[in-house]
Amino acid sequence: MSKDVRSESVNLLSTIESPADVRRLKVEQLPQLCDEIRQFLIEHLSVNPGHFASSMGAVELTVALHYVFNTPYDRLVWDVGHQAYGHKLLTGRRDAFNTNRTMGGLSGFPNPDESEYDTFSAGHASNSISAALGMAVASRLKGESPRRNVVAITGDASISGGLAFEGLNNAANTPNDLLIILNDNDMSIDANVGALNGYLAQLTTSRLYNDLRYKCYKGMRKLHLVSEGRRGALLRFNNSLKSLINKRQNIFEGLNIRYFGPFYGHDVVTIVRVLTDIRDMDGPRMLHLRTVKGKGYAPAEADPASWHAPGRFDSATGEKLDKSGPDTPPKYQDVFGHTLLELARADSSIVAITAAMLSGTSVSVMQAVMPDRVFDVGISEGHAVTFAGGLAKDGMRPVVAIYSSFLQRAYDNIINDIALQRLPVIFCIDRAGLVGEDGATHHGALDLAYMRAVPGMTVCAPSSGDMLRRLMYTAEAHTEGPIAIRYPRGRCREKCGTGPVPPLPVGRGERICEGSDVAVLTIGTVLDDARTAVKKARDKDIGAALYDMIFLKPLDEQILEEVAAKGCPVITVEDGTIDGGLGSAVSDWFASRGLSTRIVRLGIPDKFIPHATPAQQHKMCGFDSEAILDTIEQLSGRV
Amino acid sequence: MSKDVRSESVNLLSTIESPADVRRLKVEQLPQLCDEIRQFLIEHLSVNPGHFASSMGAVELTVALHYVFNTPYDRLVWDVGHQAYGHKLLTGRRDAFNTNRTMGGLSGFPNPDESEYDTFSAGHASNSISAALGMAVASRLKGESPRRNVVAITGDASISGGLAFEGLNNAANTPNDLLIILNDNDMSIDANVGALNGYLAQLTTSRLYNDLRYKCYKGMRKLHLVSEGRRGALLRFNNSLKSLINKRQNIFEGLNIRYFGPFYGHDVVTIVRVLTDIRDMDGPRMLHLRTVKGKGYAPAEADPASWHAPGRFDSATGEKLDKSGPDTPPKYQDVFGHTLLELARADSSIVAITAAMLSGTSVSVMQAVMPDRVFDVGISEGHAVTFAGGLAKDGMRPVVAIYSSFLQRAYDNIINDIALQRLPVIFCIDRAGLVGEDGATHHGALDLAYMRAVPGMTVCAPSSGDMLRRLMYTAEAHTEGPIAIRYPRGRCREKCGTGPVPPLPVGRGERICEGSDVAVLTIGTVLDDARTAVKKARDKDIGAALYDMIFLKPLDEQILEEVAAKGCPVITVEDGTIDGGLGSAVSDWFASRGLSTRIVRLGIPDKFIPHATPAQQHKMCGFDSEAILDTIEQLSGRV
Repeated sequence: MSKDVRSESVNLLSTIESPADVRRLKVEQLPQLCDEIRQFLIEHLSVNPGHFASSMGAVELTVALHYVFNTPYDRLVWDVGHQAYGHKLLTGRRDAFNTNRTMGGLSGFPNPDESEYDTFSAGHASNSISAALGMAVASRLKGESPRRNVVAITGDASISGGLAFEGLNNAANTPNDLLIILNDNDMSIDANVGALNGYLAQLTTSRLYNDLRYKCYKGMRKLHLVSEGRRGALLRFNNSLKSLINKRQNIFEGLNIRYFGPFYGHDVVTIVRVLTDIRDMDGPRMLHLRTVKGKGYAPAEADPASWHAPGRFDSATGEKLDKSGPDTPPKYQDVFGHTLLELARADSSIVAITAAMLSGTSVSVMQAVMPDRVFDVGISEGHAVTFAGGLAKDGMRPVVAIYSSFLQRAYDNIINDIALQRLPVIFCIDRAGLVGEDGATHHGALDLAYMRAVPGMTVCAPSSGDMLRRLMYTAEAHTEGPIAIRYPRGRCREKCGTGPVPPLPVGRGERICEGSDVAVLTIGTVLDDARTAVKKARDKDIGAALYDMIFLKPLDEQILEEVAAKGCPVITVEDGTIDGGLGSAVSDWFASRGLSTRIVRLGIPDKFIPHATPAQQHKMCGFDSEAILDTIEQLSGRV
Repeated sequence: MSKDVRSESVNLLSTIESPADVRRLKVEQLPQLCDEIRQFLIEHLSVNPGHFASSMGAVELTVALHYVFNTPYDRLVWDVGHQAYGHKLLTGRRDAFNTNRTMGGLSGFPNPDESEYDTFSAGHASNSISAALGMAVASRLKGESPRRNVVAITGDASISGGLAFEGLNNAANTPNDLLIILNDNDMSIDANVGALNGYLAQLTTSRLYNDLRYKCYKGMRKLHLVSEGRRGALLRFNNSLKSLINKRQNIFEGLNIRYFGPFYGHDVVTIVRVLTDIRDMDGPRMLHLRTVKGKGYAPAEADPASWHAPGRFDSATGEKLDKSGPDTPPKYQDVFGHTLLELARADSSIVAITAAMLSGTSVSVMQAVMPDRVFDVGISEGHAVTFAGGLAKDGMRPVVAIYSSFLQRAYDNIINDIALQRLPVIFCIDRAGLVGEDGATHHGALDLAYMRAVPGMTVCAPSSGDMLRRLMYTAEAHTEGPIAIRYPRGRCREKCGTGPVPPLPVGRGERICEGSDVAVLTIGTVLDDARTAVKKARDKDIGAALYDMIFLKPLDEQILEEVAAKGCPVITVEDGTIDGGLGSAVSDWFASRGLSTRIVRLGIPDKFIPHATPAQQHKMCGFDSEAILDTIEQLSGRV
């Protein structure tokens, strides 16, 4: 499928145990190494799925960085780990790569606990410039010698996040020698959006022009004609001239960061040359590379969005193998997407907002039909929420669909721009709870706790796809303030209905079954496992009552009164941190009434949960059906 | 003191009941109105203190906006309310202005609950562009006629926040007719920082040049020589030319936002003319005004930082009246600042980071002595935290000093960039708890709850200035992960010591006094009120035990065991939300042990608390000494 120019006789990749081995190669050998890395990625990722297209696009950059920089003494700070698989292969993790994203195996993202070459956690976009600036400043303060180079590798989507801008703004103003690589593949996970992106696209790629500029510099430097200061001035004049021709201004130069590029990012020899040239310069600087997401694998180049994380595939044909059959229940995302469209069709004030996750959240379903009422604001969760606030203030009903862990970035916006003003914004919090293979950075573990603390916020979670539909209709009917519905990644247990459903009363849960030995209170999709456990307990003659609380806030006090009246122990189950969520809310209620009720809170313990399958993680955390059953048995005193 | 050119015969301001009255004036009368507003502000704010210098600098802008735009149909969205006092005077709140920032009186910030002219909550910086964009898009979607103009008024400090950049990036890319006013006084609360600020300073102010450009436009438009598209192209070419001369690039043009300016911001007639010219243009555009913070009052112009919120002052001499005597106990901020310097002197790895609050947090104390180890990153809390992560990763010990409510912006950074990597960053959370007159947007009500939910975070709060010192030494000795110390605005009860103190054991509280009728558990400075209440209870023969928990996380289980053994009711007291903080943590502990302990949680209830004095707020929330005493009496069964 990919162009194969390898000399089959020597496999270079198999000889690379660390970046020092890369640096022993001749520069002419690097293209072959790049091809081998691509082949390796295709072979492995077709079988053990992971993020694919981003790493394919960063192969030459990765090789060049380890070739030119003295890693790990020099620091590479990757922004979003999608692109870092090649980096893992070159840094002693080639043989372990078949364990990628599996329990106990390699993490899918750079992870400092895994390797000294992974300098910083990278799971949420836009943090590399800030973190790398910290390292660069630390090195200066410590007066390290030789100079420690620090390189932030960011993407064109990541750099549009506010955090990246804050990093740039500060980097340009603080003494440091940071190098920022802008790996520009003109794609976020979906197609990229925003003015900055349009701007990047207009920066001219002229290899001839860049070449000329470089040769000119090098010549003048050799002749000692250019001082550092003079070089800066020349460069600025040069970019001004360019912007005069383009009629677009160079933002980075505007911020006083020296800008080089754009260069073609798949010519490893050129990248090595350019990196070598700018490696030892002083002050913050940016190298802009144009790359192709999915490079080297034709199906991925043709449709990079669907190849971001394609699942298993046939490497020869590009056919994707993880297909759903006609009877497969839908994903929660799809239930959300189709219900959103239903609501939007019936209510012209409904608009939808997402932050670079159009297809991930299935907001794409509505976008296909009514693009004018869908806003993909790019990686800018804070803006997404405040923008929704402005829309709501002037009469629209915004539905904000953001992944739980990313919504942490918008906490202040939720509090001050929405809740304080009681604006009727509907938060659809996707990827809530443990998310499986993406691991610690991506879990939506804290949303129940941090949302509960926000005054005036209604917080609920569906236990099924149909309940998600019901809660979305409930949210639309709830105009007195914001409401948050959180639901997990993955598929429902059953197929769902379509069409309008009556709203639920806010703050009312549901009794699923009676029992007086133990009462189990759940919120969200953990109901399924709790139901299984309760049934098995019944087989053992233990009568466990089961309640789906549905709402964390306001709590259904009628249910709590009923449970308190039983006088039996209580078990709370939630796919969220046990500190501050349902368990705490129930404890608070019982304690303040002075009731001697034993309450066992099951949920995510107070630690970061590593990558594994969701089922493994539920077991690890002690809230799968077996753990619930064990707890029921213990508390009932029947064991 | 201020230049007074008023015609004393007619006071214009006293005739303005709403902006419609402003629009009835002749443009030549506007300078007089501006002078009267200034005089009014000086007279009132010298007696009833509030934010001063920002509003003084925005007088002409405010008058011009209400003159040119059809408010409230047209929307003005203020960014940070400091500058909005003039706006309040023109929108029916002149007579109520003497109640500014007092309980039941006007809010110190724009507040939609107070007036329809206050379109959006503005307390945290950088949100105006996003919110205004939402309104502009809502108006388009609803097809309103006549067109509703939406104006975001932001400052040069606010616009450096990541949220503002996200807003700009999206505004340039979404169909809208938003007007952004950049009120550039080259100041944050302290002197402004960051590359963007340096950039703004270099944009040339040439009244002649701008005048010429304008006349040229207007002439051509009259002759129908310029289409909308052609005008955009001309403008871009024009700005490119300017940047070629400046050797600086225009960032806003780079983002495809039409840029006009900079203009002198204290010539109200010119501003009216320019605003009238650009009011009806299509598409997003920015007007850049250069203003002087404190304009029109010489002492404030000379030292705008100290006149940001000067307290009471003698309007004739500019002498500040709220002075502290030699025996006044220090502010918590000063205790922090001086202890920080002590620690930094002894440990060269200590660095300090603040986000535009150098003097507010008293990080300025260290900065004066070791400027190279202090980083004021401007309004960019997310970056501040991730930058600290990079510093910590490479061996420094960063102390991050940020106000509690602003730290909400960095929640994701705290979780992913610090806690997940167990980096030993010390968070010094200033303005924790209820802050008094600044009101709902500024309370640090949620930090205990949102920090408790973060795995691996140590959370504590001092009950006195000396305890703050002790906890800072404890934090320095704690290298296993991040630690957060939260302390309030305002003064300690007593003077504090200096010099090294031994660290405390992490997770250990302190028994203050014995008692067996009730146990009172506190965290932070509420200990004082609890102590008073316990003493008074003793006078009534009620034995209340009192514990200063010091640490919220980890909780001192030894104390909890001791309390549980008493079997008496428990009262928790905290200056934080009762949902998720100390009260919840204690409830969780008791409930999970099945202990029939009545627990009453005192703290901030689940709502937004309006502005008032801190003492009034503590009473309002029911955790002042009287309320604590009442609760002790009730629970002891002696009443």
